[in-house]
Formats: sequence, C-alpha cells, structure tokens
Amino acid sequence: MMIPKKLKVIEVGPRDGLQNEKKNLSVEQKIALIQLLAESGFEEIEATSFVHPKWIPNLADAEEVISATKHLPINLFALIPNEKGYERAVKSGIHGGTFVLSASDSHGQSNLNKTTKESIRELKILYSQAKQDGLLTRASVSTAFGCPFEGITSLERVRQVVDSLVEIGFRRIGLCDTIGIANPYQTFEYMSKLNQDYKQVEFELHFHNTYGRGLANVCAGIEAGVYSYDSSIGGLGGCPYAPGATGNISTEDLVDMAQAMGIETEINFTELLKASELVSSYFNKPLDSQLWRTNSLVALNK
Amino acid sequence: MMIPKKLKVIEVGPRDGLQNEKKNLSVEQKIALIQLLAESGFEEIEATSFVHPKWIPNLADAEEVISATKHLPINLFALIPNEKGYERAVKSGIHGGTFVLSASDSHGQSNLNKTTKESIRELKILYSQAKQDGLLTRASVSTAFGCPFEGITSLERVRQVVDSLVEIGFRRIGLCDTIGIANPYQTFEYMSKLNQDYKQVEFELHFHNTYGRGLANVCAGIEAGVYSYDSSIGGLGGCPYAPGATGNISTEDLVDMAQAMGIETEINFTELLKASELVSSYFNKPLDSQLWRTNSLVALNK
Repeated sequence: MMIPKKLKVIEVGPRDGLQNEKKNLSVEQKIALIQLLAESGFEEIEATSFVHPKWIPNLADAEEVISATKHLPINLFALIPNEKGYERAVKSGIHGGTFVLSASDSHGQSNLNKTTKESIRELKILYSQAKQDGLLTRASVSTAFGCPFEGITSLERVRQVVDSLVEIGFRRIGLCDTIGIANPYQTFEYMSKLNQDYKQVEFELHFHNTYGRGLANVCAGIEAGVYSYDSSIGGLGGCPYAPGATGNISTEDLVDMAQAMGIETEINFTELLKASELVSSYFNKPLDSQLWRTNSLVALNK
Repeated sequence: MMIPKKLKVIEVGPRDGLQNEKKNLSVEQKIALIQLLAESGFEEIEATSFVHPKWIPNLADAEEVISATKHLPINLFALIPNEKGYERAVKSGIHGGTFVLSASDSHGQSNLNKTTKESIRELKILYSQAKQDGLLTRASVSTAFGCPFEGITSLERVRQVVDSLVEIGFRRIGLCDTIGIANPYQTFEYMSKLNQDYKQVEFELHFHNTYGRGLANVCAGIEAGVYSYDSSIGGLGGCPYAPGATGNISTEDLVDMAQAMGIETEINFTELLKASELVSSYFNKPLDSQLWRTNSLVALNK
C-alpha cells in the first residue's frame, strides 16, 4: 500500500453542506464559519454557490459572503452552474470557480436543466471567460460513479466527459459520487485507469457517506494515486436533486484518518474542531461525523 | 486491487452487541434474534458469552440462549473467558468457543484480570480441553491494534501473541481493534506481514467503527488477504472495559459494501434487514449503521 506524504482536503461544507440544511444561517454566521475554517489551515474552501436564489434560497447571499471573506489568505471557490452565475461570481471577487456538470443526462436535466452535452457546450464558453478573468478553475462531474435515475455510471461514460473537459482546457477535474453508491473496488478501478490515461489531469474526488463507505472510497482513491478530496465540516451535505443522498464525508473523520495514517493535511485538528463546535451550535443538532458521535457517547458515559 | 470471490461474515451482535446495551433483552427476544440471523445465511454466529454474570449481567442467560438455538443449522459460538466459563459452555452444548486474551497487559488485567502471559497459560489448558471435547475453536486477541491504556500495539507484540497461540494449536486467530483506532495503513501492514509469516493461520478481523474507519479497515484487510470479518447487527457493541469504544462495524453496511463490490457473503440482505428491524424495535432507538441513518433520512424526507 503506497501512501502519499500529503493529502489536499478541500472544505465544501459552506456550499454543499449549507445548501441542504432546512435552517438557513445568517450571513454573519456563514462568514464566521469560513473564517474559522480558514484558520484551520485549508488551502481552498468552496464557500458558496452562484446558483439562482430561486433554486437554492440558502445561498442567496453569495455576494455578501464572498465580499466579507475574499481577503482571507486562502483560495475561495464557489460553485458556478451557468453564465448568469458566472457573471455574479466574477463581480463578487471570488478566486476560483467549481464548474459543474453531470455525467448522466437525467441527473443533469434534474439538477442543471441541461444534458451532459449541453453542459459541455456552456462550460467551453465559461472556461475561456474564466481564463481571461484570471480565475482558478476546477470542473466537478456529478454522478460520476452512479446516478439516482440511471444506476451505475460506466467508466466509458466518465471517459467521454473527461475527454471533453480536457479538450476545453480543464486540468483539475473532480469526480463526484453524488449519492454515495461508489464502492472501493469501483473507485480504485476507475481512478487508476483515469490517472494512467490522463497524466495531465489532477483528479479530485468528492464522496458522500450514504452507505458508510466514504472513507473506504478515499483509501481506494489514494491507492489509485488521487490525493485531493472534497469533504464537509460535520458531514453536512447532500444534493437537493438526488433523492436519498446524505452528507458529504466528514472533514473531521477524513483529517483524523489521514493523521492516523501519517499523511499530512496541513489542517490543525484543534482549530478544525472549533469549526465543528460552531456548526453544531448553529444547527443545535448532532453532527454527521463518527468523531462527533463517539465524543458525544464518551461524554454521555462520563 | 485484488478482491476475493467470498467474504466470511461472523455475526457477533448477540454477544458483543447485547453485552453493552443498557437495556437487557429477554431470553425469548435473544432467541428470536439469533433465529432471524441464522435465517439470513450466517455460517457462524457468536451468540453469547460465558463470562460471570456478575461482570456482564446482560448475558447471564447464556445457557438458556444456547439451549434454545443449538439446533439451528449454523455454528454457534460463545465467548469463553476462563475455565469456569468453559465448563458452562461445554455443558450448554455450544458448537464453538471464542477464546479471548488481550495483546496489552493493562487491558487484559482490566478486562480479564490477567496479563497476556497469564491468559496464554490458561488458554493452553482450555484449548486442549476443547479439542478433546470436539469444540470448534478460535482465539480472539483484544487490543491487537491499539489499547486504551497503552496506545498503539506494536506488530512485534502481536507477533509474540500469535506465536504463543499457534504453539498452543490455534489455527483461527482473530485480531480485534477493540477501541477502533486502527487505520487502513496499519491494518494492511500488520495483516500482510502476518499473513505471509503464518501461512497455517486463518486470520479474522474484528473492527469497531469508533472513528468511522471500520469499512476502510475491512478493505485494507481484504487487500492484505484476510477474508473473515466479525460484525454486529445494527452496529451494536463496544467494550465495557475499554473507555471510548463504540459499536462494532455494522453487519448491514459490511454486507452491503461487499455486495456492491461483487463479493459473495452468502447473507440474504432482505432477511438481514428483518433482523435489523427486530433489533431496532427491541431497543426503540436508531441503529448505528449508515444504512439505517440513510434510510431513516429518506423516509423522513418523503
């Protein structure tokens, strides 16, 4: 088992987590959370989404959030779903864009109102614009392992999407297990082949812990040579257009596992737990991380 | 990534799970659970423990449980902590014994009132008795990856214990991550070396999901060539003498992952979920499996 010296952990809780919570936080609360996360040592945080507020009202304050956090010494990313969102994002002063599409047409139509091909056409325009505007770019492929409507996504299909993204110019490509049905064997198979065939691409993985396999999938990804992972503070998250999707893998559990394995993440765990506490106080509920459940249990039995 | 055709899943919920629950079940409830589990297709179930009722009152009914379930077409095991427990176990008509010791002296003294060496001396007698009596035997080494009092258990220490057990005659040796602090890298390192050095031994692994790494550790074990895993229905479990230990890995999540990976377990998942439902109805609480949490969430949002 080859383990790397370093894993890059990209915190996506403020976007993928908060967009799915029934309770919306205030702008001030979001800013405080992003600040605490930045102090924990993340190099990159996905802070919000420039999706239309009609679809995701929780993130209607994207401009205010970015305006108050863009001075932080990190790369601030936001999800950019379309041209309108792109315009808002650039105006806000964001540093980087996560450009999304779905590997499956039915999820794409449900989530973005576009087939995969239609997304690719739009991403071509947005990517070239982003390069002109000096934005950092990463593509993010939903349902790259499986789709709630179409089942398992074939490696062939993923290759087609990656081909198109590479042709556009993307060099950071995230593959998302939107509904948490990837398994470690599939992850290893897909990622070792993709890593071999696209040496110019830095792949990133985004797992949900729907069936408890999130960290097992991370380990399979590591073995296949992928060293960048999205995760969400407190395991917040889901997908409003993917029935049955639960939270992202928890940042706490991921960083804790990496530490135990001797892999550097540059996250200060003590600072990270302050962010956990803050999230828990905001929502007044237990977090969806195993670390949280265990600590609660220990406290209960004391 | 080499994956096996088949995984052996040994259900330990009726022992490792029930011993730790605050609410004790009736004999009839336990029997009904073991029957349902047997119908799910397990080859082996650890049904109870012949520990002194003073220490684990929940399992004081061991004789009654075995008497009512020993006709089932499975291998019924019970945990056997000492000579007195052995006598009771044999009289009960049990098919197999799980003979326990700790890899660390301080946990051994806390859990069994014996150092590792003292346990080894006693196991020698018990093993030879068990062979005479025609019992199936497996050894079970607590704190094989880490100890709540002594920290990480070195591979050297584990080797010493395995050497002693092999010398006694044991050919099935379970290594237990009693407090869930093993990590996938450690698991792979330890198990690939042990598997190489003890070709005559069938190693079994027993993980707790304390930090969410349970299934990741299973995958690391599989890669190292270990194909037998203890797990507990609903993730019940813990250790009364290991502060901070939470539940075993959940049988549902393990079987579900194996199925997704195309590995046969011979467990009928639909039948297994009936046992989950039964456990949940007994304790009237959510189960500690990700499958349970996800299904509850889906039901909640419908």
